[in-house]
Amino acid sequence: MTSKSSESSERTGLWLVGARGSVATTAAVGLLALRAGVTGPTGCVTELPAFTGVPLVSWDDIVIGGHDIVHCPLEKRAEQLAGAGVLGQSVLAAVREGLAAVDAEIRDGYHQATHTGDQASAASRLSEDIRSFAERNGLARVVVVNVSSTEPPCPPLPEHDDLDLLEAALTDPARAVLPASSLAAYAALRAGSSYVEFTPSAGVTLPALRQLAERERLPYAGCDGKTGETLLRTVLAPMFTARALKVRSWSGTNLLGGGDGETLADPVTAGSKLESKARGLAALLGEQVTAPLHIDNVPDLGETKTAWDHVSFEGFLGARMSLQFTWTGYDSALAAPLVLDLARLTAAAHAAGQSGPLAELAFFFKDPLGSDEHRFAEQTAALLTWAAAL
Amino acid sequence: MTSKSSESSERTGLWLVGARGSVATTAAVGLLALRAGVTGPTGCVTELPAFTGVPLVSWDDIVIGGHDIVHCPLEKRAEQLAGAGVLGQSVLAAVREGLAAVDAEIRDGYHQATHTGDQASAASRLSEDIRSFAERNGLARVVVVNVSSTEPPCPPLPEHDDLDLLEAALTDPARAVLPASSLAAYAALRAGSSYVEFTPSAGVTLPALRQLAERERLPYAGCDGKTGETLLRTVLAPMFTARALKVRSWSGTNLLGGGDGETLADPVTAGSKLESKARGLAALLGEQVTAPLHIDNVPDLGETKTAWDHVSFEGFLGARMSLQFTWTGYDSALAAPLVLDLARLTAAAHAAGQSGPLAELAFFFKDPLGSDEHRFAEQTAALLTWAAAL
Amino acid sequence: MTSKSSESSERTGLWLVGARGSVATTAAVGLLALRAGVTGPTGCVTELPAFTGVPLVSWDDIVIGGHDIVHCPLEKRAEQLAGAGVLGQSVLAAVREGLAAVDAEIRDGYHQATHTGDQASAASRLSEDIRSFAERNGLARVVVVNVSSTEPPCPPLPEHDDLDLLEAALTDPARAVLPASSLAAYAALRAGSSYVEFTPSAGVTLPALRQLAERERLPYAGCDGKTGETLLRTVLAPMFTARALKVRSWSGTNLLGGGDGETLADPVTAGSKLESKARGLAALLGEQVTAPLHIDNVPDLGETKTAWDHVSFEGFLGARMSLQFTWTGYDSALAAPLVLDLARLTAAAHAAGQSGPLAELAFFFKDPLGSDEHRFAEQTAALLTWAAAL
Amino acid sequence: MTSKSSESSERTGLWLVGARGSVATTAAVGLLALRAGVTGPTGCVTELPAFTGVPLVSWDDIVIGGHDIVHCPLEKRAEQLAGAGVLGQSVLAAVREGLAAVDAEIRDGYHQATHTGDQASAASRLSEDIRSFAERNGLARVVVVNVSSTEPPCPPLPEHDDLDLLEAALTDPARAVLPASSLAAYAALRAGSSYVEFTPSAGVTLPALRQLAERERLPYAGCDGKTGETLLRTVLAPMFTARALKVRSWSGTNLLGGGDGETLADPVTAGSKLESKARGLAALLGEQVTAPLHIDNVPDLGETKTAWDHVSFEGFLGARMSLQFTWTGYDSALAAPLVLDLARLTAAAHAAGQSGPLAELAFFFKDPLGSDEHRFAEQTAALLTWAAAL
Repeated sequence: MTSKSSESSERTGLWLVGARGSVATTAAVGLLALRAGVTGPTGCVTELPAFTGVPLVSWDDIVIGGHDIVHCPLEKRAEQLAGAGVLGQSVLAAVREGLAAVDAEIRDGYHQATHTGDQASAASRLSEDIRSFAERNGLARVVVVNVSSTEPPCPPLPEHDDLDLLEAALTDPARAVLPASSLAAYAALRAGSSYVEFTPSAGVTLPALRQLAERERLPYAGCDGKTGETLLRTVLAPMFTARALKVRSWSGTNLLGGGDGETLADPVTAGSKLESKARGLAALLGEQVTAPLHIDNVPDLGETKTAWDHVSFEGFLGARMSLQFTWTGYDSALAAPLVLDLARLTAAAHAAGQSGPLAELAFFFKDPLGSDEHRFAEQTAALLTWAAAL
Repeated sequence: MTSKSSESSERTGLWLVGARGSVATTAAVGLLALRAGVTGPTGCVTELPAFTGVPLVSWDDIVIGGHDIVHCPLEKRAEQLAGAGVLGQSVLAAVREGLAAVDAEIRDGYHQATHTGDQASAASRLSEDIRSFAERNGLARVVVVNVSSTEPPCPPLPEHDDLDLLEAALTDPARAVLPASSLAAYAALRAGSSYVEFTPSAGVTLPALRQLAERERLPYAGCDGKTGETLLRTVLAPMFTARALKVRSWSGTNLLGGGDGETLADPVTAGSKLESKARGLAALLGEQVTAPLHIDNVPDLGETKTAWDHVSFEGFLGARMSLQFTWTGYDSALAAPLVLDLARLTAAAHAAGQSGPLAELAFFFKDPLGSDEHRFAEQTAALLTWAAAL
Repeated sequence: MTSKSSESSERTGLWLVGARGSVATTAAVGLLALRAGVTGPTGCVTELPAFTGVPLVSWDDIVIGGHDIVHCPLEKRAEQLAGAGVLGQSVLAAVREGLAAVDAEIRDGYHQATHTGDQASAASRLSEDIRSFAERNGLARVVVVNVSSTEPPCPPLPEHDDLDLLEAALTDPARAVLPASSLAAYAALRAGSSYVEFTPSAGVTLPALRQLAERERLPYAGCDGKTGETLLRTVLAPMFTARALKVRSWSGTNLLGGGDGETLADPVTAGSKLESKARGLAALLGEQVTAPLHIDNVPDLGETKTAWDHVSFEGFLGARMSLQFTWTGYDSALAAPLVLDLARLTAAAHAAGQSGPLAELAFFFKDPLGSDEHRFAEQTAALLTWAAAL
Repeated sequence: MTSKSSESSERTGLWLVGARGSVATTAAVGLLALRAGVTGPTGCVTELPAFTGVPLVSWDDIVIGGHDIVHCPLEKRAEQLAGAGVLGQSVLAAVREGLAAVDAEIRDGYHQATHTGDQASAASRLSEDIRSFAERNGLARVVVVNVSSTEPPCPPLPEHDDLDLLEAALTDPARAVLPASSLAAYAALRAGSSYVEFTPSAGVTLPALRQLAERERLPYAGCDGKTGETLLRTVLAPMFTARALKVRSWSGTNLLGGGDGETLADPVTAGSKLESKARGLAALLGEQVTAPLHIDNVPDLGETKTAWDHVSFEGFLGARMSLQFTWTGYDSALAAPLVLDLARLTAAAHAAGQSGPLAELAFFFKDPLGSDEHRFAEQTAALLTWAAAL
């Protein structure tokens, strides 16, 4: 069987929540550029030789649409990203037309502040957008991926733990029990779509929504795409444990420009991101260590982010040593190919009849659903084994 | 079965070539400190929970001896290391007596410049030192580990490839066909001992010596202990390949004080170390990349070494990004526990009847004998599987 | 005139508030070690050739005493510092006797939580301690230097701005209008001593106390010793402005162990330090830039502190570039010689009849009193010119 | 007097040796962009407020021409620089026409390998190019600036020390006694132009050429523009000396892409650059320190360069501490505005009747001619004082 023939011939939808954001725009530009042959698959995990033979949808058969609450044309967003160094001018020229087609598939997202009526009707409208997108484009299935701005932590409610309670509350026009990301997940699942939570927002993680996914026999994955500092931590921490070196402190500072920086400048919002990072570190090291962590909004950095980590560790006979690293990258360029990979892999899992949390996609996430494995090498092995069996 | 009962009760020798060097002294101090209970096993891989049940010699049953060409008492060397921050004063106080006992087991090493007579007789003398050490101490077996200064690269000779030719040449008083490290390996194998090459010197790697090991049914391992920059490279490079990120250049600078810095200041000697590092990097990345690498002698750094690496890589849509790291550590504190681990594991392999290159010890080495696997996570898994089966 | 003859023959007191802290202990050990000839004057600015001929008290003629609220013997504190790498064992051995003598000159400090009675009587007792120290030791004058833990920012009161109001309030047993540092400054000035504020605490900076210094014709200096990140900023920022390069952001993270880390972990206390740092940066760059700054308590770092700064700047034609630095040092080793320098220089100014803020000592401080000059090179030149005229 | 009125109204030529290189192209683009008002003067020292009132030629009155041995159109070179991130697309669009005009003023440079005839006739041709440029454009004077590729170190000849001997040798068709940079300097001076050596090549530094400059009453300056690692060293080293901290080692690694990286990959060529850097460091610190220094060619870095320096220093009581920095910048963007500044300042000195080495321009150079002052702050002060007196 050739690599070609293993590609699924079914057209598949990628529905992006936050479809006009930097990650979504870069994913759309990248897909169009891959299709046009003006860029290579660098950064796309599913194009590695190890995935030959896995039944994944081809780039040609992925159709992008999505929700957003802003209206800036994708072409303009792409121009901004080119100005910021994320894209080259020649790529931009090759995808302008294709971006207009994606633009035509973007619908108004849910915005709590401006919404009137109950959340149930909002969810119905969102679901209908996804269903009509699928129908209009002849799609076998749709993967919904949330790449919108990180939300503040979501205060717990009893309705989050019980699907029946939740559905009753959604019809109460006086209440808004779900944060926007979870309403998007609810709408996705109700539309028969799988769901990927690429941000640290609540999304599909509420128990009631996980019940819904199980009931509908739909797969989901998340959460919080692993693209920088945490990626390095899940690579480096196992080295210390394998060598019996005792990490004493692991301090980190993240400098972010772009929209993400602005959103996370709010300490309340940052909270959920910081907590998830700390949990992962303790899991990796097998114990709590001093681990101060900061996220700073530094607008002049634009689309780049820079992380500095300082690890203090102890070796034989109590010798004190240290490791520092500085990671400088374009957040969108790191995240976008993973979004495409996740669309392919989640669609394949859906097609294969898998449902519930896709634990083997832990490779992609800071806070993997369905998995306690944070070590990157083990996550890589698990992903490859799982994909080979698809 | 308790962890205790799995420990081998047979007394085992650890014979260090370069027994008065910083690594050897730290290993001796450390073993004595572990035995005295004044330090914990931080940095000792074989003390990790994963090794529970593996039949390893206990700290109490390891006896240290060795060869060296200098005569500075171990106690004085330990004081120097304490002054340099490698050891604490309280550890030093607890091991003084024990160091004197180790000192009494150190014999004059082979020094080509001052040696008279043929190399065969030199080898006989070295072998006899090891044999009488074993007898005097009632040892079941001895592991010889070379931790002496790195030699200049060894020019190839036909005798290196054929054991019969080699043994004939050794009896010629006009020739010195083996570098000191290989003479030490030859003597070790002739004494029925296993051999570990912890430096980048030729040691046991010459084909004729590997023939000897096979003939004598002895295990060996090497070479070049992986304790800093290369350790990190074998941890980080697989991350880039797993994420389909294209490394474009990987530049490195090593600042070394201590004896190692002085030895490696000689570009000819450094050559063998640099070559081995570059080989490993290309193997990890699957292709050659621009990889300038320097080793500088910076005496004021004393026992510490600092490595700075700069990795330039390309992501999706050609985005250019970078990773830098700085690693600062005590070379001896990093190497010494691995020497103890290697002694335990090699002795266990010997006891289990294994011979030839111990490929599963690749975890410990920059340039693993018998293995092409440079990825640290895979090396870790292989080591654990192998140890569990001992 | 020889360098020798320019040394003042008058015995001078150095009274340390926080006399058992790390900085004070290191200063005491250092002075004794200099006197014993077991260490050189590295880090002592006043021993540079440029100070030859300036009438400064010799090391032999400085007597140390002080206040503290803890009772740990200095010798024990010095042992702790030796264990942490700040001092060598040989230095420690040479100064043990001298430390006992210093210990005998340390009195109980003022502690608001345990004090009973009005602050005026507390101040009288503190003053009397200083006066009797001077008398007992035959001192021509005493310089009081505050090196105690940083206090939380001091809420403003009308009494802080008016000496008469203040002195009235001090006699009210129901009130505690002065923070401990300012009470120490008040007591110092009332004892006829000059005062140096080496921390970011309020100390002598309250207007009422500055009035008192003027009235008593006493010199004072401060505040907040410049020993690390800020030192580098006052060196580097002028480079950017001199080269017309536009700094866009200057982000910083400070990792502190030791007592300082603990104290500054409290965000309220850190506030005063962070504000003073931000003020200085804006003054240096001539405008506000994005400048997130963190101080983290990382106990395992012990006596060391590590600062990482990331400067993003713009050059010709809008090119975006960056500078990062990491500074790793022993806070006490950096601060202690400056405390000795300040004692010498402030005593010389006092002897020369100077009073009020010693603006030319800006060289030593993050937030210089009496000066707007933050540029290190200009501060250096001003210090040398002033000292030469003493 | 307004700032405007202080600008010289005389048209001035800037003749670039290596006129199609990255630095020259960026300088030309930048001048045109400044004139068109599409960029600001960031990076231009002479536009700082401190230069108000100094009689400098306005951007409008500078005309660029030059020599080069390659023929790639400037417009194409500018496009390459835009692709590499040095220039924005909008700047490029605004200067295309102007670049064509500069292109028309570029003449074939001297290339020893292809030149036939004696060097005297080559020099005459070069001089004539400069003279006719001046005449054609109605220029009051021309400043020649060498920004061509660094040459290998120039072996000393007796003719380099004596102008008469030199001029005799130049007429010998069998000899080529001057390297290209020095022939350019000779031609410049013979054409009545001042000369600035912006590279580490020999240029005007040969004694015979300095005699010529003195005889012709012409000013000159150099050498080796200070734009990165050395700039930082001349800023940071004085901090250590002012604080009496003892630098023990100062190690550096430079990663260069672009043409400069390629040229300096040749160890022989790098030699002159490394020597000049080491000289400066010793001058700054007042003594030799261990200072390993590397320049690596890393083509994928493109127009950027990255320098990492590690400084190990000793403080009070022998405490060992360290400073590391990483500088990442666009070499052309850093150098080009300095070339414009040097043209303005050298022309003003020429107009003011100054001749010989312009020591006050040390601010701009790694190896300043006529000055032993390497400290950046002192160089800044000297420059401003000198300029104010023009």
